[in-house]
Order: sequence, then C-alpha cells, then structure tokens
Amino acid sequence: MIKERLFTPGPVPLPPQVIKALGQQIIHHRTPEFTNIFLQTREKLQKLFNTDRDVLMFASSGTGAMEASIVNFFSENDKVLVINAGKFGERWRDLAKTFRLQVIDYQIEWGRTYDKDKVSEIVKNNPDLKGILVQHSETSTTTLHDLQFLSQISSSLEDCLLVVDGITSVGVYKVFPQEIGIDILVTGSQKALMLPPGLSILYYSEKAEKRLEKSNLPKYYFSVKAESKKQAKGQTAYTPAINLIIALNESLNLILEEGLDNLEKRHSILAQMTREAMKEIGLKLLSESPSNSATGVFTPEGIDADKFRKDLLKIGIRVAGGQDHLKGKIIRIAHMGYFDYLDMIEVISAIEIALYKNGYKVDLGKGVKKAQEIYINSV
Amino acid sequence: MIKERLFTPGPVPLPPQVIKALGQQIIHHRTPEFTNIFLQTREKLQKLFNTDRDVLMFASSGTGAMEASIVNFFSENDKVLVINAGKFGERWRDLAKTFRLQVIDYQIEWGRTYDKDKVSEIVKNNPDLKGILVQHSETSTTTLHDLQFLSQISSSLEDCLLVVDGITSVGVYKVFPQEIGIDILVTGSQKALMLPPGLSILYYSEKAEKRLEKSNLPKYYFSVKAESKKQAKGQTAYTPAINLIIALNESLNLILEEGLDNLEKRHSILAQMTREAMKEIGLKLLSESPSNSATGVFTPEGIDADKFRKDLLKIGIRVAGGQDHLKGKIIRIAHMGYFDYLDMIEVISAIEIALYKNGYKVDLGKGVKKAQEIYINSV
Repeated sequence: MIKERLFTPGPVPLPPQVIKALGQQIIHHRTPEFTNIFLQTREKLQKLFNTDRDVLMFASSGTGAMEASIVNFFSENDKVLVINAGKFGERWRDLAKTFRLQVIDYQIEWGRTYDKDKVSEIVKNNPDLKGILVQHSETSTTTLHDLQFLSQISSSLEDCLLVVDGITSVGVYKVFPQEIGIDILVTGSQKALMLPPGLSILYYSEKAEKRLEKSNLPKYYFSVKAESKKQAKGQTAYTPAINLIIALNESLNLILEEGLDNLEKRHSILAQMTREAMKEIGLKLLSESPSNSATGVFTPEGIDADKFRKDLLKIGIRVAGGQDHLKGKIIRIAHMGYFDYLDMIEVISAIEIALYKNGYKVDLGKGVKKAQEIYINSV
Repeated sequence: MIKERLFTPGPVPLPPQVIKALGQQIIHHRTPEFTNIFLQTREKLQKLFNTDRDVLMFASSGTGAMEASIVNFFSENDKVLVINAGKFGERWRDLAKTFRLQVIDYQIEWGRTYDKDKVSEIVKNNPDLKGILVQHSETSTTTLHDLQFLSQISSSLEDCLLVVDGITSVGVYKVFPQEIGIDILVTGSQKALMLPPGLSILYYSEKAEKRLEKSNLPKYYFSVKAESKKQAKGQTAYTPAINLIIALNESLNLILEEGLDNLEKRHSILAQMTREAMKEIGLKLLSESPSNSATGVFTPEGIDADKFRKDLLKIGIRVAGGQDHLKGKIIRIAHMGYFDYLDMIEVISAIEIALYKNGYKVDLGKGVKKAQEIYINSV
C-alpha cells in the first residue's frame, strides 16, 4: 500500500475543513444565508489583501480572471509591456494579443527574472505604456519577480497599470496590493487558497477603476462593472460557484487564524528546507530568483526528469515536471497551501531514495538533515 | 424542526452520490486517472446528447458557455434573431449586442412562446440572418419554446445557426441536437445535471464548426478551438473544474442508468402533477407553453407572491419568485433533476396549507389528490 501525496504546484491538497464544506448539500445563492457567507468571504479576502477596496470573485479558473484584467481595463491598441519569463508570461502575452493590445514582449530566459535596466529602457522608450503585465510568482519556472521596482516605474508613467498574476503568490506571501502599488491583482482557488479549481479572484485599484469607463473591449461574463455592483451587496451578476465560495470561507478561516505573518514565514521555511536540501544533495535549482510557492530543480545528467517523477510516484510522491523545453529536465515541488514541515521531509527523503535507486551518488539523509536543521533554527 | 427543501429552478438538490464525489481529496488534472474520468464523462455527455461530435466543458457557469456560443461562431455585425421571451432571452440579446452583433430583438410577452408567422416574416425579410438564438426552456417564465420549427426555418437560410440555451432543458427532455437540428447547444451544471454551479457544457454542429475559422471576435478563456483540441485527448486548455467533472461523471451515471426515455417521462409526470394540481387548486399558470423543468404560477389576487414564498419556507419549501415585472406575482416551482413523485406531493401540499393560512378558499387535499391520480395513471 502506497499513499499518493500531491506536491504539484496546483492543485494542492485540500484541508479536511474544505473537503467537509465541499461535500454538503447545495444552498441557493439568492438567500440571506448565502449572501451572508458571500459577504463574510469577501471581507476575509479583503483582509488577505489588506484592503477595503473591491475584491471580486468569478466562477472560472485563474485564466478567467487574467482575461478579466485585460478586457475591463484596456482598449484596443493600448500598448503594454509583458514580462515574459515562462509559460504564464506567455499567457499574458497571448491574452493581450488576442484582445488586440499592442504587446512589447520582453522575453526572459526561463528561470531568470527581469533585468531592471532593460525594463527602464523599454519604459523610457515607451512613455505611452498603458500597462505592465507580470507574474508575481511564475509557476512554470518557480521564479519570483520583484514587484516593488515595477510598481515604481509603472507609477512614474502617465497612465500605466501594474497588472499582477498572483495565482501562486497570494497565500504564500503577504501580497498587499495597495502597499506594493499593484493596480490589478488576480489569483485562483486551487493554489495557496487550498480549494479545487473553478474560482478566481480579482482586485483593482482606484487608478484601475478609472479605466473601467474608458475600456472599449467587449466583456460580458467577466464584466467587472456588472459584478462590482452586485458583489458589494453579496450577490453576483451570474450564478456563482456556490460550493467553492462556501469552501473559500473555510480556507480563509484557516489562513487568517494562522495569521499572515505566520503564513508567510511558514512558506519561507518550507521553501528554504526544500531548496537547501536539494542543493545539499547536489541538485541544481532552476531559478535564480526562487519563489516560495514551489521549487524547480534539475535532475542529474543522465536521469530523465519525467522518468524520475514516475520513480517518485512509486514511493508515494506526485511532483510536476517541466514544460516545453524544460520537459524531462526538471521536477517542480510545491510547498504552497496545506503543507507543513514534515511534508517537506517526506518529499526530500523520497528524492534521495529515488536518486539512490537511479545509481546517483547520494549520501542518504543528507538533504533531510539539512532541512531538519533549517526547521530547528527557524521555528 | 423544519427541513428546508430546495424547489428553486437552479440550483437543485444534489444526489448523495454527487455530494460524496464532491467531498473528496483533490486529484491532479494532468494524470492518467483524471484523463480517464474526463474521457468517460465526455462520452457520457455524448450519450446524453446522442452524438459522437465534440462536447466541451468549461469552468464557468452557464452564461460562460452562452458567451462561448457568440464569440466563437459569430463575427462583428453578423445579424442574429433573438427569441426574447424572458430574462434569459434578454441575456442572449445583451450578449450578442455586447459582442457587436446586429440584433433583431423579437420581444415576446413573458409566459408566451414565439409566433411562427412572426418568425417566418422576420426570416423572410432577413435572409442574411447568421443565427437564431433561443432558450429551449426559458427559466424565468417556465416556458418551453418549440425547436423543430426554428430548426427548419434556420436551415432554410444560407448560413444561419440555431443556437440553443438548453440550461434548464437538458436532462429534462431528450435534447438530441443532431436529430433536432441544433447547431450550438449549451447547458450548465446546477440544473438537471444535479451539480453545484461552475461547469458549463457546449455542443456544436458540423455547420457551426465551419464558422470557427471565420469568426473575428476575440476569445481566449472560452476558445472552442483551444479546448476542442485538448478535450478530445482528455485534457483542457486551462485548469478544469476538477471536482465538478468528477461529480458530473457520477450524476451522468444516475441519468444514464435511469435511461433517457424514463428520465423524460419522469419529468413529464412531475410537471403534470404540479401543473394540474395548481389548476385544481384554482391557481393560474404563467406559461401558455409550460416547460417540464419548472412551473410558474400566479398567487391569488391579494396574496403577494414573495410574502407567500416566506410562508412556504416556514413549512420547509423554498421556491423561487418572479423577476422584474413578475416580482411579487408568481412563484416558480422546480421539478428538474433530483426530484421524485412524493417531492411534488410535498410542495403541492405546502402550497395548499399556505393558501389556507392566507385565507384563500381552498379544499385541502384537492390538488394533492389530482397529483396522486396523475401519478397512478402514469406509472
């Protein structure tokens, strides 16, 4: 008997409280009972974002909220800069192009973050930039992009919005859009919010709000104006993902009970344990600017990463692989959401075992020891 | 102690098998396990639609699939006829207008269906019509619109698609798009498919498929081309609503085990029991062409329908009210999905009791008796 443990960067395991909330008889959404839950959930999301501004929920996966960020706040031919450093950077670019924005596609080698001088140069040459689109945490390369610099440079322009995909950073870091200077922030349910996929979330700033009237792109299902009016009163323009919202209310309880400082610290420790253990074992990290949501690591030469993932699965660990040109070269280990310290010990230990079985010279327990030390010294 | 029973036309009660499927730990969507479930579910949907053509699932509520019907198969300025006979007819109109189609808005009094001569006349004067948009079952007025006539008239035109919102008809009637001649058929999860909201479904014909290349409207999240390629192989372009698809696999088992003939017959009997009981009690039906998914009925003069709904809730029955100008005038009783005969006896009896308590002259048990007779004579 082998138990399968999910360590993929989305979906991540559901806490029992969430599973319980999901496995319930449905309630109607146009009732005081649901309105009450909806408004509670909304308020908790505002706490998560440390804001009293509008935070909207859509019945869609994260890509839906990314689409909402484009169609509500931009117009045809608006010029935007896409920080394209991975699969989800490409998604920003493709979305922006689809809706006929003019895209400056700043392509960055996978695993690296943007170059400040390069961004400064682009911005200098394009003062008419209407938006900078970026992933806070690029899941495909497990890379964190600094937002502070982008926020400064964006706000130095006349009318530029900083649009952030926080799908794998919200709930891992304290992502406070008003403090950071994010204009549009989106996230999804199946990552650190510890829910099944199917619910996406969108925050927008006062500056972004002014764009709502100007935007000439057609929108209906993802209309921020339509939802904004309704959601403030605990309703939605179209039928909401009732059971996911009820479950989100529960998972936000867990998050807020832990506290955002503790949450951020836990994720930092989980990530450090994983990264340092991998280095100790002798494996190379993919990212030069690693995110605390997941760790991408190269398998040793001669060991195909996808074959290695199957070896891990035999011991009970499911991790993700690489995409596109990284396929077969890396594995990605999630540590966002419902994970604690011993979970990371399990996955590190499994990697040691699988490396050993593949004939790779590894001191069994060395990575685990490193992770244990980090844990002991951190908490 | 009063038990609340949901008789609203969406969401409707979930069967225990569905609740059980929902209340489970998540699995990853890029696994043979999920691909297998996805392909099984897809095949069962094809059985439901009696087709071997593409049937797509989107992580959205029904309105999302309605939007997909517009943005994938039409182009700016395409002229379409909207059969607008209620709240959801208005939604077709608004969607089509939002995406800059030219809309002939055929407004019909709520509770009535379209006039064949009128439709013939419109079509005769507009041979360049690119689409006819209709609700099979208009939920806001509990009205069924005949599709056969629309299909004939649509196929008589050079290049016109019949686009059908089957959100409250699929799973109530046998809606076989190829036999009827429907080009695009959409439905949603929280109606007769007996799931929470958050999953929508779209069928398209061979004729509609030819439009995919021509359509010049931007689409990304709801891209039929992107999803079509992936879903045939058991994957999706963007993260799917994993737990709803797993639950749909279960609810389709229930539907296919009952059999589509039995399913249609059961819904017909439930609807007849309700309608005939209401008439027996002396209440007037809203619709001249009532749908088997829900029954709309006027409360007697002097009894506000929304106040009456509260009276029903006190006995344990939640029904829906009227929208817009029908607010306070009608109640709507669902009988689609997870309902059986005694469920209808409960709701009929509750209505008798609430009428009696409101001082309305009613022979207690008269409506119930009528419903019992219909049941006895039908099965």
